[in-house]
Amino acid sequence: MKIEILNTGSELLLGTTLNTHGRWMGQQLFKLGLRVARQTTVPDGDAIRGALDEAVRRADVAIVTGGLGPTSDDITREAASAVTGTELIEDEAALRSLEAFFEKRGRTMAPDNRKQAQVPVGAEVLSNPNGTAPGIYIPPRLNGAANCAIFLLPGPPRELYPMWEAEVVPKLRSLSGGDVLANLAQLSLAMVGESDVHQELDADLAKIAGLEVGYCARLGEVDVRLIGSDDAVKEGRARVLSSFSENCFSEAAESLEQVVVRQMAEHGLKLATAESCTGGLIASRLTDVPGASAVLTHGWVTYANEAKVSQLGVSETDLADHGAVSEPVARQMAEGALRVSGADLAVAVTGIAGPDGGTSEKPVGTVFIGLARRGRETEVSRQLHPRDRHGFKRMVSQSSLDLLRRAVAEKAARSSGL
Amino acid sequence: MKIEILNTGSELLLGTTLNTHGRWMGQQLFKLGLRVARQTTVPDGDAIRGALDEAVRRADVAIVTGGLGPTSDDITREAASAVTGTELIEDEAALRSLEAFFEKRGRTMAPDNRKQAQVPVGAEVLSNPNGTAPGIYIPPRLNGAANCAIFLLPGPPRELYPMWEAEVVPKLRSLSGGDVLANLAQLSLAMVGESDVHQELDADLAKIAGLEVGYCARLGEVDVRLIGSDDAVKEGRARVLSSFSENCFSEAAESLEQVVVRQMAEHGLKLATAESCTGGLIASRLTDVPGASAVLTHGWVTYANEAKVSQLGVSETDLADHGAVSEPVARQMAEGALRVSGADLAVAVTGIAGPDGGTSEKPVGTVFIGLARRGRETEVSRQLHPRDRHGFKRMVSQSSLDLLRRAVAEKAARSSGL
Repeated sequence: MKIEILNTGSELLLGTTLNTHGRWMGQQLFKLGLRVARQTTVPDGDAIRGALDEAVRRADVAIVTGGLGPTSDDITREAASAVTGTELIEDEAALRSLEAFFEKRGRTMAPDNRKQAQVPVGAEVLSNPNGTAPGIYIPPRLNGAANCAIFLLPGPPRELYPMWEAEVVPKLRSLSGGDVLANLAQLSLAMVGESDVHQELDADLAKIAGLEVGYCARLGEVDVRLIGSDDAVKEGRARVLSSFSENCFSEAAESLEQVVVRQMAEHGLKLATAESCTGGLIASRLTDVPGASAVLTHGWVTYANEAKVSQLGVSETDLADHGAVSEPVARQMAEGALRVSGADLAVAVTGIAGPDGGTSEKPVGTVFIGLARRGRETEVSRQLHPRDRHGFKRMVSQSSLDLLRRAVAEKAARSSGL
Repeated sequence: MKIEILNTGSELLLGTTLNTHGRWMGQQLFKLGLRVARQTTVPDGDAIRGALDEAVRRADVAIVTGGLGPTSDDITREAASAVTGTELIEDEAALRSLEAFFEKRGRTMAPDNRKQAQVPVGAEVLSNPNGTAPGIYIPPRLNGAANCAIFLLPGPPRELYPMWEAEVVPKLRSLSGGDVLANLAQLSLAMVGESDVHQELDADLAKIAGLEVGYCARLGEVDVRLIGSDDAVKEGRARVLSSFSENCFSEAAESLEQVVVRQMAEHGLKLATAESCTGGLIASRLTDVPGASAVLTHGWVTYANEAKVSQLGVSETDLADHGAVSEPVARQMAEGALRVSGADLAVAVTGIAGPDGGTSEKPVGTVFIGLARRGRETEVSRQLHPRDRHGFKRMVSQSSLDLLRRAVAEKAARSSGL
């Protein structure tokens, strides 16, 4: 099944916004055993019409993102109508749901928004609980120009992603029909570099007949995706785990923070965070997970030294003698957070995010991570993540969450008598 | 001058690699007053031939990246030769420079690399000091199929970027000849919906001759981009500001948190945050900005009620009587943060992120935001952001940062006697 992706949006071509849809859809389609044959980006406005007209002649499925907004340069609906030779009419259900969206937010719907309820005759409306633009599915039989199924989807990820799961995936499955869906295993590995994973696994995985391997690296984690026959996937999975079982935090596409919150909740554990260089990112990632309130009780962002002293009881002498970025300060921050909060575990970070503040002894990227646990010795690890500010914060939060995950796993192993 | 970009590489479509070439080239071209009319990604192998053939018929300039390597699926050279009807011959200078590249590294050149010295007759070789693949420039007059200039460039950024500066930019300047450089204004507006911006501005901006308008919406903010003649941009900018001057937080593509940190640092103001429902996101956004340590001293993530009481002095009676998500609790959190930290301003948020915990009186999405200032009455605003957890946290952090921005602007206006 030949699939083309069309992204509309002048901001994607003016260099102001990075187009992440190509990668994201490539990943989603790969999970279904499907591939992208071509991806095209055009500016807002007329260009989508020509690009869509070309795509439907080449492809079996054309997936368009963007251009469904209320303004004059949002003309994806009109383009699809012209290309398929179908008339646009107002869809009552879509209009109701638009009105409800505004009503729920106590706002009046602008007249321009009304055009967002227009749909080619015979097309299907894909509901959008997270925005005003409903998606549209135009089945192949309605397409005057070619035998191509067309999806019109909103551009913003927070609207696109849920619609993809709920509406697009089932339709793609049925469109791909006889295409055999491959077995899939996805192993998420924390705190290991992509090149190390390649170095360690590539040659061995390549020898497994009928196995396709995909990697997806984010900062501080790598997903290894295995697709193929039942046996091939099983053998590949065993190979990955033989090298990286300790790094593997999920085989169910969970985020690291989801795993930490779920496991701590399962064990009835309470957590406190004390952050300097990450500035609240660890707590923020944890509280992205529904139900985090059952686990995280207290968090501190002790950016100033005075805050470390007054809030967490860090010794002024140690601050003066060793500096804020030091082993004793990380230790005292973690222990202070544990003591003040009454939690079972506390994690503390203090480091140099940069761009300034580094020394030859403690260069930019240096961080001390403290892990305090009720009734156990506090552990402090020193790490170096010489990256830009965002990258540094992300790596330190990742490493901290992974330490928490390992601590909970260890506790679980102990309490079950292992 | 109509420019199309073609990127080749299967990894870009399998979701393993993010395609950053589109954004990067968009930025580079914009600096020259040029735009990208279309960007296309195709897998390695045959697909580039069809895509290039289509592009040269539409565009004045086609810029291809990737597919210049030594392997069998690197066929960009062959595709360009076929599309333009020119023969490939071995270029002696290119071969010498290839050999020199390997020699310098003490490696023997593999026979496959020799094909990298092949160039269409009459094309120009663009030297690549950072890799084995030389670039190729095929001027329009050589193009059999259409009057389109073609650049074939290497994919890896470390090879592409220097070649772009040294070889591509001068040629683009001469190709674009008399094209006038466009003026650009970008106004970033906070806490206003995209549809409200359209409703208010579209009709008026459309009347300004020679003005192109682009919008880019993120959650809680909209960029309005104006491109055109000097006068048109000036007039458009004035029109935007006549409606949204209070919402406009940057005309220099700064983030809201950058503006808050910069302005507070300029006024020597210290800040504390007290977060419940945002779980540290406000502090984390602020600390994404280099130099945030000059501004943010203390942050609390008082997720548990007990933390609100013990850390910020929130009244247990008020928590019991009004609930954690209430006006008095937001007020006391802000005032507690101000008192304990000794800062000049403190912002506090308490709300219901969901998916659970809503009531008919306080539905999911309800939030109280408190702003405490030294020597002034504390202000608490109640807002409703009924979104998913990520969206809710983002909107509340956005609203909080915008309140801080306005408070600093107000202070600046007062102290300058306005």
